[in-house]
Amino acid sequence: MSQPAEPLDRLHQQIAFIREIDRLKAITRRSLLFSKERFENSAEHSWHIAILSMVLAEYAGETVDTMRVVRMLLIHDIVEIDAGDVFIYDEIGQAEKAVKEDEAFERIFGLLPDDQRLYFRKQWDEFENGESAEARFARASDRMMPLLHNVYTDGAAWKAHKVKPEQVYKINRVIEEGSPKLWAFVKSLIDDCVSRGLFEHPES
Amino acid sequence: MSQPAEPLDRLHQQIAFIREIDRLKAITRRSLLFSKERFENSAEHSWHIAILSMVLAEYAGETVDTMRVVRMLLIHDIVEIDAGDVFIYDEIGQAEKAVKEDEAFERIFGLLPDDQRLYFRKQWDEFENGESAEARFARASDRMMPLLHNVYTDGAAWKAHKVKPEQVYKINRVIEEGSPKLWAFVKSLIDDCVSRGLFEHPES
Repeated sequence: MSQPAEPLDRLHQQIAFIREIDRLKAITRRSLLFSKERFENSAEHSWHIAILSMVLAEYAGETVDTMRVVRMLLIHDIVEIDAGDVFIYDEIGQAEKAVKEDEAFERIFGLLPDDQRLYFRKQWDEFENGESAEARFARASDRMMPLLHNVYTDGAAWKAHKVKPEQVYKINRVIEEGSPKLWAFVKSLIDDCVSRGLFEHPES
Repeated sequence: MSQPAEPLDRLHQQIAFIREIDRLKAITRRSLLFSKERFENSAEHSWHIAILSMVLAEYAGETVDTMRVVRMLLIHDIVEIDAGDVFIYDEIGQAEKAVKEDEAFERIFGLLPDDQRLYFRKQWDEFENGESAEARFARASDRMMPLLHNVYTDGAAWKAHKVKPEQVYKINRVIEEGSPKLWAFVKSLIDDCVSRGLFEHPES
């Protein structure tokens, strides 16, 4: 496409990207911190799932290169700077998500030199399409984290958004594709929340 | 030391660790977000430097395995949950830091099964001692980020803590050990801040 950048231009492009992604720290998610003090943001969430994937990699259903999982997890939410965080139980939002996120990717990663934009695009597509063992385990890690937040904050986000147990079982089933063992564990956590009456919202 | 944990005990230990490290999101640093809206926390900072190291790895002074760098960067601040974030220009705080952080490491990573505690201890020691090409580049990445925050927020943290240019040159020199090229760039940024009068605090 364009001429290869001069060395200093290249570094300036990279610094521009590093500055721009600071904005992910202002994207608020639906999960409460375990302390319940405030909602989590997408930058700190990305860090947390990266560690979760390192700690739980032994349960992956297929052999995975853990640091390939981590790399995908660290970058996959950056598009939310433009596209926002869509609540996993919002089916309409999920349908529009792909187009918005694709545009977001091109704008934000387009700040980088072309070779790096393409490098990260490969990682991002791999994650989105779940087309490798690493992508499947990354997706399981990403899905497991908000579930843990709900379980250990008495279902705060489920309650706020009137989520039903059927939805929780259905949406989190993707964990099984990355790790049957973690899915068995997660299922027992959801069962327990049902027994504890966490889904019996007065309004429903 | 102890008997090997039963499989489900092992998973419960890992989940306890994942819950505990959520508290890193409440550790406030001295760096303002680039938007100047609030101070950054250590969890989102850890995410940001991991990405910075991936984007700028080509400037490392020695050949590095980028994902080894990332792994060290993601875990190295977790000790701040107990030990707090010590401002890099606080020389007294820096001296007490090692003991506090060592205790913090053992308590927090001690929540994990022994083999994982030891695995992460190796990474953490490697980073702290700067004893590999990866550790040196990780340390350079970690040092470069707050400098960028200062440069692009008109020296907010420098001003608040009356930091002098000599200190900035001295403290950030560690960047050179990881990347002479990035140090040359960073030095030009500091020079420029000096020219712009960012260090001329009315009180000094």
